[in-house]
Amino acid sequence: MISKADVDAAAVRIGDRVRHTPVLPVADSGATVFKLEYLQHTGTFKARGALNRILAAAESGELSGAGVVAASGGNAGIAVAYAAAQLGVPAEIYVPVISSPAKVRRLHELGAVVVQTGNEFAEAYDAAQKRVSDTGATFCHPYDHPDMAAGAGTLALETWAQTGGFDTVLVAVGGGGLLAGVAAALDGRARVVAVEPAGARSLHDALAAGQPVDVPVSGVAADALGARRVGEIAFEVARRTGVQSLIVEDEDLIAARQHLWDRYRIVVEHSAAAAMAALTAGGYTPAEGERVAVILCGANTDPSSLG
Amino acid sequence: MISKADVDAAAVRIGDRVRHTPVLPVADSGATVFKLEYLQHTGTFKARGALNRILAAAESGELSGAGVVAASGGNAGIAVAYAAAQLGVPAEIYVPVISSPAKVRRLHELGAVVVQTGNEFAEAYDAAQKRVSDTGATFCHPYDHPDMAAGAGTLALETWAQTGGFDTVLVAVGGGGLLAGVAAALDGRARVVAVEPAGARSLHDALAAGQPVDVPVSGVAADALGARRVGEIAFEVARRTGVQSLIVEDEDLIAARQHLWDRYRIVVEHSAAAAMAALTAGGYTPAEGERVAVILCGANTDPSSLG
Repeated sequence: MISKADVDAAAVRIGDRVRHTPVLPVADSGATVFKLEYLQHTGTFKARGALNRILAAAESGELSGAGVVAASGGNAGIAVAYAAAQLGVPAEIYVPVISSPAKVRRLHELGAVVVQTGNEFAEAYDAAQKRVSDTGATFCHPYDHPDMAAGAGTLALETWAQTGGFDTVLVAVGGGGLLAGVAAALDGRARVVAVEPAGARSLHDALAAGQPVDVPVSGVAADALGARRVGEIAFEVARRTGVQSLIVEDEDLIAARQHLWDRYRIVVEHSAAAAMAALTAGGYTPAEGERVAVILCGANTDPSSLG
Repeated sequence: MISKADVDAAAVRIGDRVRHTPVLPVADSGATVFKLEYLQHTGTFKARGALNRILAAAESGELSGAGVVAASGGNAGIAVAYAAAQLGVPAEIYVPVISSPAKVRRLHELGAVVVQTGNEFAEAYDAAQKRVSDTGATFCHPYDHPDMAAGAGTLALETWAQTGGFDTVLVAVGGGGLLAGVAAALDGRARVVAVEPAGARSLHDALAAGQPVDVPVSGVAADALGARRVGEIAFEVARRTGVQSLIVEDEDLIAARQHLWDRYRIVVEHSAAAAMAALTAGGYTPAEGERVAVILCGANTDPSSLG
C-alpha cells in the first residue's frame, strides 16, 4: 500500500521543513549507528508524517479551509498541531477529558484548538470523525494513512545516505506507521526488525494471525506504543517485505533507556528505547561485521526518572 | 603556546578513539548549528584532551610504568580515567574527601585508583603533585597543558569540516582548555566568543588585567567552570587570536539549559549551557546571515531538574 516511490516523494515534499537529524556512530551491544530522530521537531519522528500528510492533502485538493483534525493527546497530536502551525493551516485536536493538563497546554501553545471530550480515547476519536464529516476537515490518522507512513519513512532514506548503508535496522512499533515507512523506504535493501513491548504486541499478533487483530495494551510504553490494532498499511508492508518481529519486556525497555543515558547522555522515551532493548536484552544478536542501525525515534518523556 | 599544527597533530593522534560527534543544523536565537559534543565518551569533550595527553606522553617517552595522575573529581578526572583505561595505562585520581560517592564510584568503575585526601581541592592537587615527583607518573592537568588543549581543539576541526565552515563559534570557558584548543584550531578563520558565568570569570578578568588573575568562584556551573585562574595557554591564545569575552548570569544558564531540553530534547550540564545562553539571553546578537556554531560540550548532570 506504500512503496519506496511514496517515501521518495515524501522526502521531496517535506524537504527542509523537518530536521535532517544526525546519526551517531557507536560500538555498543551490536549497534553500529544510532539515528538521533528524537532531535526532530516536536521531539519525535511524527512531525515528518504530519507534514507530509498535510502537504499532500493540499496538493491533491483534499485540504479545505476547515483545516485538519486529529485524535491524539500524544505524539501524533502534537506533531499534527506543529505541522499545521508551520503550514498556516487550522488544526483541531480531539483528546479525552482525562488528558494531562501539560499535554493540553502544549497543544494550545502550538496554536491548535483542543477539544476535550469523552472519558476514553475511542470517544475522542469518534467525535473527531464526526467533526470531519460535518466540516470537511482533513483527518490526520496517527499512523494508518499512506502519507503519514511515507513521511515517517523519510528518516530511513536519510539514515541510509548518512551511513552509506547498513544491513539491519531496529525500529519500535506502536501502530506501525514508522515501521511501514522504514520498510517501504528500504525496499529489501536491509533487514527490518520490528520491536514491540510484550504489553503492546499488535504487529506480532497480527503476523501470527494472518491479519490485524485487537490486542490488550499495557506497560511503561503504552502511552506511545499502545495501539490496540496495528495499521493495515504496516501489516501489509511488514508481510510483503519480510519484516522480522521481536518482543521485549518492560524491564528491558527501562534498562535500555537508562543505558542510553548512562553511556551516551541520550534521553529517549520508553517506547523509543524498545529498539535498543532488542540488543541490550539479547533478543537480537547481530552477526560478526553486521552493520546495525538503531532508530531512536522520540524523547517526549520526563527525564527525572534517569537521575 | 599552541597552534593549529598542534591541533592537527592531535586529531591524527587520537583518530577514532574519540567519537566524531554529530552536528545538528538549527535555526534558533541566531544559532546555525549545534556541535553535540556532550555525546562524547565520558559525557564531555575532556576525553579528547585526556587521550591526546596520554598518547603524546607515550610518544615522547614521558610516560612511564607509573602511569598517569590527575587531580579532579569532575569531568577531567573522569576523562583521564577513561582514556587511561582505553590505553591500558594505570591511573590514579586524587580527589578531596568530600567528593560525592557517585563521582568516586564512577572513577572506580573506570578502573582508576582513587585517592581521597584533604578537605579542599587544593590539598588533593598538592598530594597529586607529590605523588608525581615520587613516582615519575605523568601529571594530567585538567586544562592548562598544551596536549589537553590541543586535544580539545579537535572538536573545532570536526565542526568546521562537518559544516563547511562558520563565521562565529560560541564556547564555554572554565580553565580555558577547550577555548585554547578551539581558538588555535580555527586560527583566525572564525570569530571565537568565550562565554563565562558571572560567578566564574577567570578569562574575562585576565583579559582585563593583562594577565591571569585569581577570581572568586560561585554559581550553578562552578562544578565544571569553577577554575580560580584561567590557564596560561588559554590566556595567551585568547589574546593572540582576539577571542571575544562574554559574561552570562546564572539565571540565563538555567534558562538556556531548559530551552535546549524543551525545544530539542538535548540535556546538557549548566556549564555547557553557557554557550547557548549567550544567544538566548541576548549577550551575543549575530548579524543577518552570520553562521554561528554553538559548542554543547558536556552533559554530566542530573536530568531530574528538567522534568
